[in-house]
Amino acid sequence: MTPQYADPVAPILIALMLIGLSAEVGGWLVQKLGQPAVLGELLVGILIGNIAYWFREPIITVVREGDLVREIANQALLHGVSLVGAAKTILPPGPSTARVLEALGGAAGPQAVSIYWFVDELSRLAVIFLLFLVGLESSVAEMRRVGHRAFSVAVVGVICPMLLGLGAMELFMPAATFEHDLFIGGILTATSIGITARIFHDLGRMRSLEARVVLGAAVIDDILGLLVLAVATALVVHGTVSVWGISAITLKAVAFLFGSIVAGIWLTPRLVPRIRRMGFRNVRLLFGLGLAFVLSWVASRIGLATIVGAFAAGLILERFFTQELEDEHSLRDLLSPLESLVVPVFFVLMGLQVKLETLLDWHTLELAGVLTAVAIAGKLIAGPAAGRGVSWFSVGIGMMPRGEVGLIFASIGRELGVVNDSVFSAVILMVLVTTLLTPPLLGVAMARRQA
Amino acid sequence: MTPQYADPVAPILIALMLIGLSAEVGGWLVQKLGQPAVLGELLVGILIGNIAYWFREPIITVVREGDLVREIANQALLHGVSLVGAAKTILPPGPSTARVLEALGGAAGPQAVSIYWFVDELSRLAVIFLLFLVGLESSVAEMRRVGHRAFSVAVVGVICPMLLGLGAMELFMPAATFEHDLFIGGILTATSIGITARIFHDLGRMRSLEARVVLGAAVIDDILGLLVLAVATALVVHGTVSVWGISAITLKAVAFLFGSIVAGIWLTPRLVPRIRRMGFRNVRLLFGLGLAFVLSWVASRIGLATIVGAFAAGLILERFFTQELEDEHSLRDLLSPLESLVVPVFFVLMGLQVKLETLLDWHTLELAGVLTAVAIAGKLIAGPAAGRGVSWFSVGIGMMPRGEVGLIFASIGRELGVVNDSVFSAVILMVLVTTLLTPPLLGVAMARRQA
Repeated sequence: MTPQYADPVAPILIALMLIGLSAEVGGWLVQKLGQPAVLGELLVGILIGNIAYWFREPIITVVREGDLVREIANQALLHGVSLVGAAKTILPPGPSTARVLEALGGAAGPQAVSIYWFVDELSRLAVIFLLFLVGLESSVAEMRRVGHRAFSVAVVGVICPMLLGLGAMELFMPAATFEHDLFIGGILTATSIGITARIFHDLGRMRSLEARVVLGAAVIDDILGLLVLAVATALVVHGTVSVWGISAITLKAVAFLFGSIVAGIWLTPRLVPRIRRMGFRNVRLLFGLGLAFVLSWVASRIGLATIVGAFAAGLILERFFTQELEDEHSLRDLLSPLESLVVPVFFVLMGLQVKLETLLDWHTLELAGVLTAVAIAGKLIAGPAAGRGVSWFSVGIGMMPRGEVGLIFASIGRELGVVNDSVFSAVILMVLVTTLLTPPLLGVAMARRQA
Repeated sequence: MTPQYADPVAPILIALMLIGLSAEVGGWLVQKLGQPAVLGELLVGILIGNIAYWFREPIITVVREGDLVREIANQALLHGVSLVGAAKTILPPGPSTARVLEALGGAAGPQAVSIYWFVDELSRLAVIFLLFLVGLESSVAEMRRVGHRAFSVAVVGVICPMLLGLGAMELFMPAATFEHDLFIGGILTATSIGITARIFHDLGRMRSLEARVVLGAAVIDDILGLLVLAVATALVVHGTVSVWGISAITLKAVAFLFGSIVAGIWLTPRLVPRIRRMGFRNVRLLFGLGLAFVLSWVASRIGLATIVGAFAAGLILERFFTQELEDEHSLRDLLSPLESLVVPVFFVLMGLQVKLETLLDWHTLELAGVLTAVAIAGKLIAGPAAGRGVSWFSVGIGMMPRGEVGLIFASIGRELGVVNDSVFSAVILMVLVTTLLTPPLLGVAMARRQA
């Protein structure tokens, strides 16, 4: 008499436990070595992902495919083909794909998809959450004070990698189209706010001038990066791009950021005490996260990254919840347990998706080397744009890590047929190297700055 | 130039926001009427679900199908049929199914499935979380003190509804098989710990003797209920049931509960300080939730409900984290923000799945009336089994709400072809009525008890 009922949450419990445990152990180990915890979370993800792939563990083998898993499941559900059938049309042929097909075809296939689905959504919520917390730790006044520095760093830090990328492609892949080179350049533009924020946080330097400049610039270059993406996509899809279209997107982005922050700062102190007086429970928590979710959603609707909205929500509430309500538990305190539970999920999942077997191809390695060099050089050049009184080296290093936006760029490029698999692997390597190099380098740079 | 990239988390953001907002407003409204918040969360779910269905809102129309959505998606992914194709084989024909098919066939189909998937897993985590908190608020010593009362209430509260259910079916559906009647009886056995715990919590009576007895009995009758399920399933599948099989499951359940609690209470104070000394971060939070997840998973593996494991984990840690670490923030405090965020998800989602259109069928209504009467009578009879010094009426009312386990029972019965759709609808109505009646009745009973 075998058990007849298995709660479908059981595999999720195991997945969350393994992620939590490995994040904890990874973070603990690298902290012993004086490195920020985020580095350990990424490394432990890489280790587990590749070992599990080696031992043909079906669920992690599927999860490693990252967002392609979502695409495969969507295809399968929409067009009435099996998971394996959908995967065959989406994944490139090769030994790695053969293993994924094997895993998807087995009994664990739908389970692997459902685990990926849940953990991926959770990790996306975690990033929104992280940027909301970063916003809560920033303040509008400070942002205004560092605004011109951040803006210069962002603009130089978008133009330089873009031009260097175009140039490198001209030398390295002369046969490639201009649209291809534009995508490569675009991939190099955006600093990963999530990673850079975590590193400053882990170093305990979140309130330093350098951190302010880097985070401000990272928000701005995310917007610029998505602008470049819109242009590049229009070029590929329509073969042309209108000045009107570009201006419209730019306008929307600026209007959204300024509009939401100004309106939010005006509305919050008028709204929250009223809601509170009506006798609602948990006003601070629900209003806070609610605003973060709403603004993230609006940002996504108008074509910006969700995290831009989450950051704006944090900025709006910082003022109200730290100035007017100092007597009670701060929102930051309330959210801290949630933070330590969900934020590592994003970083472990990101590590899981790094496929070390792509290192075996020489052309990919070469390309990755070129991209990484350009990515690092492009942002280091942007450092001095921060002006005097700031460590330009710290700012340059802080801008180095690429992440979400670059990966989004690359996967859209792949969908459009502009970016091939070798380039995609090279991009992931570039993301990995810039991310792994940043924590130790930034630690050194900030220590020297302090001395 | 439309935005080319939409973050797949955006629909989840909206779903979570709507759930959070409606839970908040529903809870607020009924609290104004002196009722526990959980009632408002359920009612607002029912309201939204049925209004959205009326207006043919595709996503909620799909979500209302509850766990069948998961089954449909699994079928579609495994067998390479479309969502609509899978739904046709799983859902009974009818006007309601036609609308679901329409919604699943549209562009929003896979999105609806992915939203259901995430929100459902989240709500399952929420129940585990809730029961862990209930465990943390209980103590082994208290449980031992009320143990004999709880045990009597549980046993009488399982046998009476079972016998009454068998008898009622004999009168009301004389043509039905014994296996069918056994399933109906089984559906009536298990009190919903989640609902009853929330109601006591909302009434501020969690520490009353009545709450202790009811919660203890609810845990025990969950185990007994799942035992009945195993027997009934074996009867349907194999046509026979072995004494050996029943003893094995009973033994496993008892061994798991006692074993994990004794081992946990012995291990925790030896393990936690050591881990803490090694310099790990967030030991309390991660160890606490980790234990809850592990024990829930183990419970599920041996055929018990996950919540039994979560409750055991809470009981284990109550002792350590309240007695030995009184100086610091309690684990309960750390978890409180998470609780107010996720627990309402379960109740709103449960409300969303109540289909008022099933009320239109006279036979279903009649059956629902009979089931509800038997469900209420069966548990009220169990009240006096609590012995002297306790309000038998409060205990009986507290045992009244049926929920998860009954629904699990019913859906397995449907899968096995024992329970038809009319019975299924009647079961859902019974769950609804017992749940909606409990808060006001228990409020009155506990107030009278106090006076």
